[in-house]
Formats: sequence, C-alpha cells, structure tokens
Amino acid sequence: MLRQQMDAGPTLGPSVAELVARYREGGLRPTDVVHETFDRIRRRGDDGTWISVAGEAELTARATELEERVDPASAPLYGVPFGVKDSIDVAGVLTTLACPDYAYRATVTAPAVQRLLDAGAIYVGKTNLDQFATGLNGTRTPYPMPRSVFGGNLISGGSSSGSALAVAHGDVPFAVATDTAGSGRVPPALNGIVGFKPSRGLISTVGLVPACRSLDCLSLIGSSVSDLAHVFDVAAAYDRRDPYARTRRRDRLDPLTLRVGLPPMGELEFFGDEPMRRAHHEARSQVERLFARTTSAPFGPFLAAGQLLYQGPWVAERLTEFGDFVASHPGSVLPVIREILGSAAAYSAVDVFAAEHRLGELRAEVAALWEDMDLLVLPALGTTFTTDEVLADPIATNTALGHYTHFGNLLDLCAAVVPAGVTSDGRPAALMVLGPALADDRVLGAAAALAGARTAPATPWAVTGPTSRTTLVVVGHHLAGQPRNGDLTDCGGYLLARTTTSADYRLLRSGGATPVPALVRATSAGAAIEVESWSVPSHAVPAILAGSSPSICLGQVTLADGSVQLGFVGGASIVTDPDAVDITSHGGWRRYLASVAAGH
Amino acid sequence: MLRQQMDAGPTLGPSVAELVARYREGGLRPTDVVHETFDRIRRRGDDGTWISVAGEAELTARATELEERVDPASAPLYGVPFGVKDSIDVAGVLTTLACPDYAYRATVTAPAVQRLLDAGAIYVGKTNLDQFATGLNGTRTPYPMPRSVFGGNLISGGSSSGSALAVAHGDVPFAVATDTAGSGRVPPALNGIVGFKPSRGLISTVGLVPACRSLDCLSLIGSSVSDLAHVFDVAAAYDRRDPYARTRRRDRLDPLTLRVGLPPMGELEFFGDEPMRRAHHEARSQVERLFARTTSAPFGPFLAAGQLLYQGPWVAERLTEFGDFVASHPGSVLPVIREILGSAAAYSAVDVFAAEHRLGELRAEVAALWEDMDLLVLPALGTTFTTDEVLADPIATNTALGHYTHFGNLLDLCAAVVPAGVTSDGRPAALMVLGPALADDRVLGAAAALAGARTAPATPWAVTGPTSRTTLVVVGHHLAGQPRNGDLTDCGGYLLARTTTSADYRLLRSGGATPVPALVRATSAGAAIEVESWSVPSHAVPAILAGSSPSICLGQVTLADGSVQLGFVGGASIVTDPDAVDITSHGGWRRYLASVAAGH
Repeated sequence: MLRQQMDAGPTLGPSVAELVARYREGGLRPTDVVHETFDRIRRRGDDGTWISVAGEAELTARATELEERVDPASAPLYGVPFGVKDSIDVAGVLTTLACPDYAYRATVTAPAVQRLLDAGAIYVGKTNLDQFATGLNGTRTPYPMPRSVFGGNLISGGSSSGSALAVAHGDVPFAVATDTAGSGRVPPALNGIVGFKPSRGLISTVGLVPACRSLDCLSLIGSSVSDLAHVFDVAAAYDRRDPYARTRRRDRLDPLTLRVGLPPMGELEFFGDEPMRRAHHEARSQVERLFARTTSAPFGPFLAAGQLLYQGPWVAERLTEFGDFVASHPGSVLPVIREILGSAAAYSAVDVFAAEHRLGELRAEVAALWEDMDLLVLPALGTTFTTDEVLADPIATNTALGHYTHFGNLLDLCAAVVPAGVTSDGRPAALMVLGPALADDRVLGAAAALAGARTAPATPWAVTGPTSRTTLVVVGHHLAGQPRNGDLTDCGGYLLARTTTSADYRLLRSGGATPVPALVRATSAGAAIEVESWSVPSHAVPAILAGSSPSICLGQVTLADGSVQLGFVGGASIVTDPDAVDITSHGGWRRYLASVAAGH
Repeated sequence: MLRQQMDAGPTLGPSVAELVARYREGGLRPTDVVHETFDRIRRRGDDGTWISVAGEAELTARATELEERVDPASAPLYGVPFGVKDSIDVAGVLTTLACPDYAYRATVTAPAVQRLLDAGAIYVGKTNLDQFATGLNGTRTPYPMPRSVFGGNLISGGSSSGSALAVAHGDVPFAVATDTAGSGRVPPALNGIVGFKPSRGLISTVGLVPACRSLDCLSLIGSSVSDLAHVFDVAAAYDRRDPYARTRRRDRLDPLTLRVGLPPMGELEFFGDEPMRRAHHEARSQVERLFARTTSAPFGPFLAAGQLLYQGPWVAERLTEFGDFVASHPGSVLPVIREILGSAAAYSAVDVFAAEHRLGELRAEVAALWEDMDLLVLPALGTTFTTDEVLADPIATNTALGHYTHFGNLLDLCAAVVPAGVTSDGRPAALMVLGPALADDRVLGAAAALAGARTAPATPWAVTGPTSRTTLVVVGHHLAGQPRNGDLTDCGGYLLARTTTSADYRLLRSGGATPVPALVRATSAGAAIEVESWSVPSHAVPAILAGSSPSICLGQVTLADGSVQLGFVGGASIVTDPDAVDITSHGGWRRYLASVAAGH
C-alpha cells in the first residue's frame, strides 16, 4: 500500500440543487451548462471516464428544446446534465458493457433513465465500467483505465467507475450507476463523493443488461445526499415490467433519533491498513456524537452472507446473460472476466439451492438484528489499492474491496456511502449507512446528517406509496414545540404549513389544572385563529386522538384558504364548561401562553 | 378411467366448531372424544391412513389433563383431536417421511403443532404420505397404500394422503398437511373435503423436513372452511426462526363483492375426462351465480409456471435434504422416488438462475392479472386416476394431477379447495380458489361461500398482523343498516358489539334537512344510549370522519362496561343549534327513527 503523490480529491461542479435553483431564478440557461459540460469533458480528454459522449450539437439541441418548451419550475431536473453507466440502454446509443464486440445499439431508453429525461434532465453520455459489470476495482476495461481523483495511481473502484469519475471530475452533478455486489458504492467511496443503492426493485431495472438479475439494482452517484434523494424521487417508480419491482415505503422519522448499530472495532477488517483503521475510528466517534442512540451490532452474519456471494454459485447467474457470448467469442472478453465466468460451470443446481437455504438462515439472523437497530454504519472501504496492486492479484484485491459491500443485495438491504475524511496519507475514507429493505428514507436521512448536510429538503418530499396520509389541523398542545407535538413527529408526521382558520372561529380555554384550548365555530363574531397543518400517517390518527384531552375532538376545520381539513376542535362539553374562558382575542394558543407568561 | 363400484364419499365426524361448542355447553368431555377416536381408528385397521397413532393411555391422559386443568372457554381448540403429516416433528414420535430407514425420533415439536397443542388440541398420530413428500397421488408409500373414500380403487391423492383420509374417515376433524406442488390440495379434492394452503411463511415450517424449502408450506385439511379458518388463526404466527416467515395481512372484505377470474373453459384441461368437464362446467355456473363480478382470466401464465416446476431444476432442491441419504441408502428408497431424485443431477447452477428469471417474468405477468381480479377459481382436479393407472404410468399421471396446483407456491399464491359435487359416474369434483400472497382471508371467505357455509364465523377473528385497527363507537348513520354503514364495511370494518354508553349521555337530533344524531355527555341527568362498536382499520378513520356530517366529531365515548373508546360525538355546534331536539328518552337512534316512522 505504498502511495505515490496524492491529489486533493474530487473537483465538484454545481450540484443538482444549485443548478435547479439558478435556472428557476433565471440567471442560468441549459445551453450555458451543456457547453461548459462539453468543454470540460473535451479538455480532459479520454481519461477512462466516458465510453461515449453525446455530440455538442445534440446537447445544444436538447438544451434549446428545454429553454423553448419547458418551465423550469415544473421540471424537477430541468437542465441537469447526467451520465449513464454503459450497461443501461439509451435509445440510439451503443450499449457496450465495456466489451466492444458485445455492443449493440439500443432502440428503447431504460424507463428509469426516461423518467430523468421527462423531468428535464440532459443525457450527456455513457460511463466506463468493469466489463460485464463484473468487478469492484475499475481496472477491467479495454477502454483507458480510470483512476481515482485522489491520484497516487489509486484505482477508481468499479464496476461503476466512470459514473463516479464523471461526478468527481465535475462533469455532471449526478450519474446513474448499478450495484450488484458493491458496484455503486465502492467507486464513490474511492473518489470522495456520495452513492446511494436503493432497495432492490424501487428503480426499474428494465433496460439494464443484468449482471446477477436477482441482485441487481440501479443506483445513483452524486455530490450530495440531498441531490441523490431528489433524483431518487424522480427515478423511483413501480414498473410492472420489472419482475423484482416493489413499491416504495415512505417515512419521515428524524434520523438523529434512530438506533444506529456499530460493530465492535475488533470485528472490522482493514487488511493491515492502519491509516484507514484510524480514519474509520475517527469517523465512528462522529457517528457516536451525532446519533443519540448507538448500539453494538455483530458483523458476523453480514460477512457470512458476503462470503456466500463470491465463494458461492451466484457467479453462475452471470452466465445466463453472458454465457453464450463468452463461449462463442472467448477472444473478445478480458482474461480476468473469462476466468471468473469460467469458474461458474462447476456449480450444480443443488449448490444453488443449498446456498439459497444458507442465505435464508442468514437473512433470518439479520432480520432479528433489525429489531434492535434501525440502521447499521460500517466502513465503506477496508483499504484502497493502486492499479498495479490490483493487476498483480486481481481476485484477492477485488474480494477485499467488497468486504463491506458484497452482502448488501443478498441480504436485501439499502445503503448510502458518504465521504469520511482522508487517511493520514491522503487517501479517501468513507462511511456506509445500511438499512433493511424499504428503509431508504431513513438511510438517506442518516447519510445526509453524517455528510453534514443537515438541512431538510427545501420542499417536503412528495408522498407516494402505500401509506395514506391525512392533513391534521392542530391548534394547541400539538403545535410544534408544544408538549404533545411528539405524538405527531413520532409517527412520521411533518409540518405542512403555519396558517390560520377562516375568520369565523373562537378559541376557548377550558378550566382545570391543565388548560386545553378548544377551537369552536363562531355563531356570530369570530376571528382567524393561528393553527398548523401537519401531514401524519392516517393509521396514526386514532392513537393521536386517544392521547389527547377527553374534552377535545376531531372534526372538520375550515382554513383561511377555504379548504376544509380534519383538526382538533372543542367538543360539546366546552360550551357548558363553567370555567371556560374565551381567548379569541389573542389570535392563537402560542400568543395566549406568551401573554400568560408575561403576566397579563 | 374405467371406474369400479364407487362409494358415497367422506364419512365425517363432528366438526371443530361442533366439538368446541359442545365442550363449552358442558355436554361432552375430551375423554369421550378420544375413546371414540381411538376406537374408530382401531376398528378400521391399518388402511394406510395413519403411520403411527398415540396409545389409548396417552390419549386418555391428555384428555384428562384438559378436563382437569383447562377451561374450555379459554382454549380455542379445547379437546379437538388432530393428525399430523409424517414429515413434521412431534416430540417423542418417529418422523418417517414414509421411508422407515430414514426415520428419526423427534425431540422438539414443530412450533406450528405446538401452537395447536397449546390451544387445547389433542395430537392423535402421524399420517401417511408419498415418500419424502414427493408425489401427488398417494401410491408412493411402503405402508399400506391408501385409497380415496369414494372407492372404485381411486387413488387418495398425495402427498398428504393420510391427512386427508383421517378427516374423510371421520377420525379427526382436521389434520396438518403440507403443500409444495399441490400436496395439500389434491388429497382433499379426491376425498370430498376441504383443504387450505396459506401463503408461504404464515405458518412456521420449522420442524418440517423440507421437500423444496423455498416452496414448502404447512397446510390444513378439514371438513369445513370455517373450521380451517379457525385452526389457521391458531396455527399462524410469525416465526423468526423460519427464513421465509411473513406477517399475516387481514382483511374483512365481503367475498361476494370480489372480482373472480375464471379462465375460458377452452383453456382448461380435463385429459379427456368428459364427466369431470361437465361437473366443472356445472360448478362454474354456481360460481357465476354466487359472485356478482366474474371476469375472464388467461390460464396460460399459471400453466407455464407449473411446467417450470416439474420440467425444471426445482427437483434438485429436494436433493439438498435427501441427496446424501439416497446416495448412501439406495435400497431404502422407492424406485419411483429414486428415479425422480436421480433426474436432479442433470441440472446446473445456470439452469436454476435461468429458471428463476423465467419465473420472475411469469410472476410479473401474473401480478398484472391481479390488478383486474381479486380471486381466481379453477378446477382442483382435471381428472382422477385409479391406483392401477398411477402404478402403470407414475410420472405422467402425477403430472396430470398437478395441472392446476403445480404453480401455486412458485407464483406465491394462497389457495383453498372445496368439494364441488360428483361426476355423473360418482367421482369427486372440486373447485380451487386462489389469491395472491397474503390474500388468505379473502380466499377463505370466498371458499366458505362456495362451500355453502355462508355464515360468518361464530366469533370475529382475532386481529393480528400489521394493520392496526381501532374500535369505533357509532350511534347514528353508521349503525348497521343505516345509510353510512358502508363507510365501515367498505374498508374492512366489522361489528364487534351492540351495547350502550354509560348512563350519563344525552342524544340530540340536529336540525336541518338531514337530521343527524349527536351524542353528548350529560352534565346532569343522562341515560345509556344504544351504540355499536365496530373494528375498523386505523388508517380508514380519517376518511370515515371526513365523510360524516360537519357537525359531528370524533371523541372519546365511555361505554356501559366502563371502557373508553373513540366514537362519534356531537361537536360544540350542536349545543348552540337552535333547532336541535333532545331525543334521549328514545334510548337510541334506531328507536327514534322507528318512532318517527310510526308517526309519534
């Protein structure tokens, strides 16, 4: 692990969020951005990032089309350039899998990529990869061999090498990658940027040439977690053509309140890389400071599942796609890929079923672990390698690169990697946040917190998926900062708006030891009363009501904008409460409390 | 298909429901029942139904234990005798898999069986099966070969042959079976009784010697659908030791309102059995009369998945369990089983992955079909065979028996079979109701309707699983039979109790064109008001409230038994409504309406 001169790391361009904001402000046009993108790529030359790039005329035409026909405010990825890993189809473009003799010209764009285009994004080109997406190191390509932006002849990581480099060089703010055994996580970790591997089935894999079809997923690489969360919102959609499709599950838990599992340092493997061990140890202390609740989690079952992947029969799954080609074109395939795929013939059907049964046992073991933790945080890398080290021992180094990633899809996890500083000798360290299937929101939330992007997305995420939500108007103890507000946030509620009722309400304060405000419709003179509207899961509404004062009910409330929502109102008893006081003149419960506190 | 003299069909003993009711009434004791059970089995002699039976002393001891220690009202299966397929462990008893040289004495009872015992059921013995649960015909056993209770030398069906016969002979009211490719459905269909194969993972498979571990499930055989629904409620529980465990999903939809798919008659295969075709045609007309909405459904994707099972590599999954034994004890295994398992060696790992990918495509195709139908109804049998016919051509006849069942677990369906009359020559016909994974409740509901047991279970099913439910007290338009009651039943609500409030409420009737009752707590004199409590999914509560009159709220209601529940109450506006009328003296909304109708 002798290092040569290290570079500084990624040179990021504007983020998705910055581009979108500047377009909406009117100070930037897509034609400006595509010219800059094109120039930047051309100036750097063919450094193994891109396999093919759209022509300048094509990019300009697309930018002009957007300027003429699309409202920046209505297109969530308006004018955002992006790259696509060259195992995913874009109509009219060659799909090569880094194997020129395998290449074919796609006639249909992969639906996930199409969703990005429909949202206003600009396709820039196809990015380099380990051939047939088989590898985690980035050296397995007949195109120029990419290297990490950290220099020192460090590998780029793979298989999504080019997708990571396109972001880390600032060519594009995000790129579409894939992840079967870690291909979407190792390259961003080795280039100081961010990667997100959603739960399998949330982004359609139609139009992807499969590596292991049962494990593959499309993933995203970018420069910030909030960018990736935004792109994920666009890309994710149930696709009935995808046999592994699942529906996204949303939650809005505060990530900092979640239980974070951390394996004992002694169970972690750094392959003798002491600077990396120290860097991870330092990053872990930040995790422990950031999250209120950390817990010790065994790494054994995860590691055992990872070993099943590369010491087991899943390599044969790759042959269902590439077997015929390799048999008929052995000379067209890199020797290391031929060797790996050749090993698959030794596995029998019985081996597959036996491995799946063992995996089932490990899944059950891991499922039990999730009962005591919400997230798991691991190093994304145990060590790094130079290209020479990898070429000298391609199998062992690749296995080491996947130490923390191999099990991710086998165990049906979702994961994000974020930078975690550099080692004392200038190499990138990275953390990986993992969660169980469909915990994508909390993984993104925790990763954003870890990456230091603590701010919430500018607009609440769209609510999709099977959890129906209800808008609940609150007026007193459930307001933000008031004693029962936790009833709303604990179940995943979030604030939609601070507003007022229509101008015909009265606010009463009940008698008793714990005064309760009660909103009632005025029969004559009334006022607009300050309220908050919250989005809460519908299933939580009965429990929220049951936890409230017995004198309070849920009824219909008319807001200032004329809309009618469910909300807390006074029951009939308030009208006959001899100790009730009319506090309408304060205009709201907070101002009433302030006035009481001030002694009025 | 030449038939010999046919018998009348099953000779049923008392059902689970009858036994439980009679125990609770006090007119029956478990000791009486176990003696009758034991005598009945002994009188018939070893006819291939049972492989082992508990001794009379052991049965008596268990019955006495129940009488002395257990309250019949608290044990849902108090004193109910049952059989267990001999591939499932019962502590202290040999598990043979119909292969005496394979047998071992179990030390732990399978958790699903233990749940039945814990509920008061009485284990009677182990039932016969096709060796290694490999077969659908019942002839593959070294023990006496069982035959259908319809006589004529008809096969019993398999592999759960003995479990079906133990019920069809009236030995026990239910038996535990298994179903991988149809083993839990073919035998009840061939013996004129009822079988239920739940969604995989709802009943723990721990303690079952697997056939195909990824496809196996425990199933239930009995004499009525409501019996099986009741036993299922007891047996089903999430078991974290079972890698395939899933959580049950409940619904209470009216099965008669569901969309029922029926393949065109021309797509169905009866193997030249014209009487069976006619019997099914007749049964279909009953389906069409019973369900308001039937729709045409293609059978092709189901059939294609079924063909994958027996023409594909899944047979190799059986070798993970039995491969070593067969290799070391070839003479201990029936020749037909040896031949089948021997064929597995030809399959490679690539074959498995390719078959799983094809299955994935078929699953996606079938998932799309479920968007247009809630249930699928098929024949359970295309034809029947005599034992001579099966022994003459064991593979082809077995494949024909699985024509409608092979795909069930591969496509992750749940299914119930119910008798559907007899053919003109006296052989059993049966219908199969299928639903997607976790649609168990609706499959059971529709099967009960088809079986003619149209009455609801005597007690509401226990509420478990991930759907949280809320008790909602209703007083007016939501009462059963009143205009908004559909708001409760449409979302899967069901009536828990007719009761009254505590004796301190008043009932008001609002003014206006559509009078609305409003329940308010009395400050002085009040009365107990008639109400109903309903169980509804919590997530539906906001919509139910939003659909109600604006003057009505949800608040807390105290019932006659002192419990406090959420319910509909009058809002503050009712107190100031000048047209409101106090109707407390009527005691409830229904009696008020009756009095208005009577002109009072």
